[in-house]
Amino acid sequence: VTARRVALALVHYPVLDREGGIITTAVTNLDVHDISRSARAYALEAVFIVHPVAAQRELVDRLRSHWTDGGGARRIPDRKDALSLVRIVSSYEAALAELAGGGQAPEVWTTAARAHGTVEAYGALRERLAAPGRPVLLLFGTGWGLPPELQAGADVRIAPIVGADPWNHLSVRAACAITLDRLLGAWS
Amino acid sequence: VTARRVALALVHYPVLDREGGIITTAVTNLDVHDISRSARAYALEAVFIVHPVAAQRELVDRLRSHWTDGGGARRIPDRKDALSLVRIVSSYEAALAELAGGGQAPEVWTTAARAHGTVEAYGALRERLAAPGRPVLLLFGTGWGLPPELQAGADVRIAPIVGADPWNHLSVRAACAITLDRLLGAWS
Repeated sequence: VTARRVALALVHYPVLDREGGIITTAVTNLDVHDISRSARAYALEAVFIVHPVAAQRELVDRLRSHWTDGGGARRIPDRKDALSLVRIVSSYEAALAELAGGGQAPEVWTTAARAHGTVEAYGALRERLAAPGRPVLLLFGTGWGLPPELQAGADVRIAPIVGADPWNHLSVRAACAITLDRLLGAWS
Repeated sequence: VTARRVALALVHYPVLDREGGIITTAVTNLDVHDISRSARAYALEAVFIVHPVAAQRELVDRLRSHWTDGGGARRIPDRKDALSLVRIVSSYEAALAELAGGGQAPEVWTTAARAHGTVEAYGALRERLAAPGRPVLLLFGTGWGLPPELQAGADVRIAPIVGADPWNHLSVRAACAITLDRLLGAWS
């Protein structure tokens, strides 16, 4: 249970490639579906799809419309509940501004497969979310993840997910689901 | 940490459609990628892709070969680690037989978005996995999930995932990631 407003942003730029260079990735339709469904299940306020290229933003807009107003909405209504959370922005700064909405500036919480600097554990972060405070924007990177500069400037760097093995190459869809469950899920 | 051999099976038949009828679903490439990556991160022994149609099994075989022996294996070696777990079978009974391998019959643990009969909580199941016992086959259904008869015959029905809301329409990729994390993850 959270006392904060929580949203997530799926970042397509700036993200890393395999060699650590900065790239822009293409939108993957299934990311938008899976991540908005996970966000809905964990009662997030919004899912920001961050892309600097207008044609890619239009693609996401068409996808969203199909499922919120078009044939998809009639055929599978629960998909409408999920896709309705999607907001399309050109930068993560724009996502921050929208989430602030003229009020308190959100905290930026970054996710990564490997620790960069000091990271915070899930138990402590659940407690922080349960107490009143600024809105929180959870950042997820596509490609090979968020660049170090973005991690360094974050308010919170969430601890990498440790499975049962040091091997850590989860999909962003799986990492997002697990992160939301660890931060917000009702375990038993 | 588990003292048991644990594998999962992604079932394409028999599964439910929206109206509760029994159908066969088509293979989704990204299911095979995401679920094998999650399985590798949580140190599972195998991922059985269950499909009764030979042409669909051949499709999964070509996908797997590309990533374990072909161009994909050279380009992204960590994908090879994940896809190497994939085994292709025509029924979930065949998956059980392969996992048994002439030894103890595995327990069948089913997953579902809604409770069917008595379900067991994650904390208790973590303890069961930590103690020696028979191998465990975790069953995940595509489409609208596993049929009631299959749930009824299971050794364990795992509790539905509760997010922060009664809304529960996670993708099978997200549900699989969260289930493995709750059963086997190193939380902190």
